[in-house]
Amino acid sequence: MSLTNIQLDNHGRLRHFLTIEGLQRQHLVEILDTAESLSGVAERRVKKLPTLRGKTVVNMFFESSTRTRTTFELAAKRLSADVLNLSISTSSTVKGETLLDTLRNIEAMQCDMFVVRHAQSGTAEFIARHVKPHIAVLNAGDGRHAHPTQAMLDVFTIRRHKPDFANLRVAIVGDILHSRVARSQIHALNILGAGEVRVVAPKTLLPACVETLGVQVFHDLQPGLRDADVIIMLRLQRERMQGALLPSAQEYYQQYGLTEERLALANPDAIIMHPGPINRGMEIDSAVADGPRSVILEQVTNGIAVRMAIMSITLGTHTHPFREDT
Amino acid sequence: MSLTNIQLDNHGRLRHFLTIEGLQRQHLVEILDTAESLSGVAERRVKKLPTLRGKTVVNMFFESSTRTRTTFELAAKRLSADVLNLSISTSSTVKGETLLDTLRNIEAMQCDMFVVRHAQSGTAEFIARHVKPHIAVLNAGDGRHAHPTQAMLDVFTIRRHKPDFANLRVAIVGDILHSRVARSQIHALNILGAGEVRVVAPKTLLPACVETLGVQVFHDLQPGLRDADVIIMLRLQRERMQGALLPSAQEYYQQYGLTEERLALANPDAIIMHPGPINRGMEIDSAVADGPRSVILEQVTNGIAVRMAIMSITLGTHTHPFREDT
Amino acid sequence: MSLTNIQLDNHGRLRHFLTIEGLQRQHLVEILDTAESLSGVAERRVKKLPTLRGKTVVNMFFESSTRTRTTFELAAKRLSADVLNLSISTSSTVKGETLLDTLRNIEAMQCDMFVVRHAQSGTAEFIARHVKPHIAVLNAGDGRHAHPTQAMLDVFTIRRHKPDFANLRVAIVGDILHSRVARSQIHALNILGAGEVRVVAPKTLLPACVETLGVQVFHDLQPGLRDADVIIMLRLQRERMQGALLPSAQEYYQQYGLTEERLALANPDAIIMHPGPINRGMEIDSAVADGPRSVILEQVTNGIAVRMAIMSITLGTHTHPFREDT
Repeated sequence: MSLTNIQLDNHGRLRHFLTIEGLQRQHLVEILDTAESLSGVAERRVKKLPTLRGKTVVNMFFESSTRTRTTFELAAKRLSADVLNLSISTSSTVKGETLLDTLRNIEAMQCDMFVVRHAQSGTAEFIARHVKPHIAVLNAGDGRHAHPTQAMLDVFTIRRHKPDFANLRVAIVGDILHSRVARSQIHALNILGAGEVRVVAPKTLLPACVETLGVQVFHDLQPGLRDADVIIMLRLQRERMQGALLPSAQEYYQQYGLTEERLALANPDAIIMHPGPINRGMEIDSAVADGPRSVILEQVTNGIAVRMAIMSITLGTHTHPFREDT
Repeated sequence: MSLTNIQLDNHGRLRHFLTIEGLQRQHLVEILDTAESLSGVAERRVKKLPTLRGKTVVNMFFESSTRTRTTFELAAKRLSADVLNLSISTSSTVKGETLLDTLRNIEAMQCDMFVVRHAQSGTAEFIARHVKPHIAVLNAGDGRHAHPTQAMLDVFTIRRHKPDFANLRVAIVGDILHSRVARSQIHALNILGAGEVRVVAPKTLLPACVETLGVQVFHDLQPGLRDADVIIMLRLQRERMQGALLPSAQEYYQQYGLTEERLALANPDAIIMHPGPINRGMEIDSAVADGPRSVILEQVTNGIAVRMAIMSITLGTHTHPFREDT
Repeated sequence: MSLTNIQLDNHGRLRHFLTIEGLQRQHLVEILDTAESLSGVAERRVKKLPTLRGKTVVNMFFESSTRTRTTFELAAKRLSADVLNLSISTSSTVKGETLLDTLRNIEAMQCDMFVVRHAQSGTAEFIARHVKPHIAVLNAGDGRHAHPTQAMLDVFTIRRHKPDFANLRVAIVGDILHSRVARSQIHALNILGAGEVRVVAPKTLLPACVETLGVQVFHDLQPGLRDADVIIMLRLQRERMQGALLPSAQEYYQQYGLTEERLALANPDAIIMHPGPINRGMEIDSAVADGPRSVILEQVTNGIAVRMAIMSITLGTHTHPFREDT
């Protein structure tokens, strides 16, 4: 059974959400359309739907992330689920329990959804392969592999501003090599038929054979930005600075930092995105991050609706396992 | 006032749940029957009852335990209670506040139930003696003394598989000396009239005068397992290895580890239990832990229903303090 | 725009709650009256109101405090809000994100109320100046500046026992210099027209020009307590002992500790208050703290109702931004 199959049920519907790779256009569009209808909930006086009442969503964060965990927690609570936050490094794994034993135990507590973040690629898939059939697994980031809910909130944000994907030119700038976000974005944009997806990075920060992912490769920022409609700046991991992969922060900023001057090369109505948290003056200038074309905070807001959509869809599949495919 | 009285109201009904010792058969049967009726809740589409809506349950864990805390938290939430998790080592006790002052303060916040775990024996009882009359106290493990909710989920699990307690032969294997779980199990099994309760352990891991608890003592595993219907393996605390109480882990496994071969000595339909988390290859072989006769994960599932039952019963007593004993 | 204005809307109604300073009598009376009507909720069988259902309250504690955070959490939950606890030192601020970026991100998750505690004076105000108009900010203690919800629960407690403020003599005893609690209490008592507010402390623990706050200054305890109706003992920060500000703990207790003997100087029906946690035998004798005139635990209980009131009022202002001032 391939990875693309494990997240689909026999009717081809999403039962887990592990990676964008291998999904079809209709899966992504269903998520986007559902998120669109759910995004109105936050504007209501009572920001709550009963969709997941009585369900238990477990945040299994083996790698700490307040920001991502918080958006999943809010999404679950706005669907009326009970939420259990497990910060697993401090739990019984320290007593020598294996991941699978931890999993079996939480599963036995009759939980319904696992949101998994782990430093090791493939952990969410591993868990999805081993959970009982009624449990949905969402990948909240696994190693360098994938961060599919982030990619979906990104394409959701793009679609709201630029619905015509066929004529879209998207530039993803920064450390593509270590970025699970970039990997998932590239897949999502290609599946949705984006006109052109570019990656812009020094050679040391690009994976081998990156072209096979379906992208145009640029090593210089200026040509990479030219006529772009969407610019996605990646977060620069300061940790990389210690290694040989990167010159100094100043040098990086000089070559790849997004300034207002460089932004002039892009289309006049280009939008600026960033998965956050941003390093001001490192990969992006404050004037750009806070400027009128930045949609960085919209991404955060959209993250709630998109995660609510993915939770509703995957648990909906489990609740009605035999409903007809429409 | 003796310990057996403090957990009962004037009508002999449970108002706290501190220890199995001194309870009567009817108390245990009421918990088991209530848990049986509540265990169906987890199979419903909406896994929630309104029983404790508007009540505040406080998890006061002076000793950390993700697993046990989680089951209490889920049990409370599935009864619609609000849950407050206090990890007390990090709270104002570090500012030099006494336990009693901490208690008085949380009590003053009009909470309804304290779930207490503490490394010192007697802490839950101490708290129960000092709280206001409307508060129920549940012991989630105190030192080496008692872990009564664990014992109740164990006898609940046994009853589901082997309802005829009079003809039951139960073997509890491992570190009886340091085990609050074993102590509570022995009391529960005897109160429910189990035919024979055995403890199997090296002399160094048995309390003095253990026979007075109403058990048969075995120092060797093979005769201890013979014709057993239920085998309860205790967790081996690796910390004990440093002391003189135990030989090496390998030697322990050779003498007391449960393997498929040794399991052949027990009754063919014997069930295998363990309070978790298990040490694979230390007190139990993986083939046994994961085998068809293991009910270890059922214990976890049953823990939710049993804790929901104990919460409902004790708070029910408080809510209707003058209702007639039926 | 002055600080007194930022917490009021155009109709002069409370939209944030940052400091007592600059508020009018009617603001304080509205909080006290609302708290009075809400205090009955805790006595109901279902201790919950739907007031904030679907709202998200974020506890942003940059300075840890289990006790204060817990009362805000309970107040929010009893109003049916969803609560998010962020312990910010462990969040993405460690990744180098600025306070404002953290704020913008949480704001973008469509939360409705920020409860802020920070070691630096002015942080809550800073946040209130920068949040979107629909968000209410409550100050849960900022540096030495203010702790206005504590002051409101204190005057609420006083009003229940001594409703005639005009003839009230209140003595605040202890480290006034470092106490945000004292500062807020003095403002609240004066706004409510308390007959006489005294501060009692060694010179080293009084701010310069303390008289300008509208208090009588005493350096000796005996005259400070004479004929007092309310005695508020402040917590002695043991940390101050290291510095030159304080003699030894014993010497302090001899001069400023509240004992039964000294209490005899106050009015026979004087009440004793303390914001907690108390240092027994340091600033207050156990016999006094636990005695019949102590209302210390009532303060804790009242803290829930008062915080519920402030949450209801400030979010009510936001929900109905254009309702007429009555």
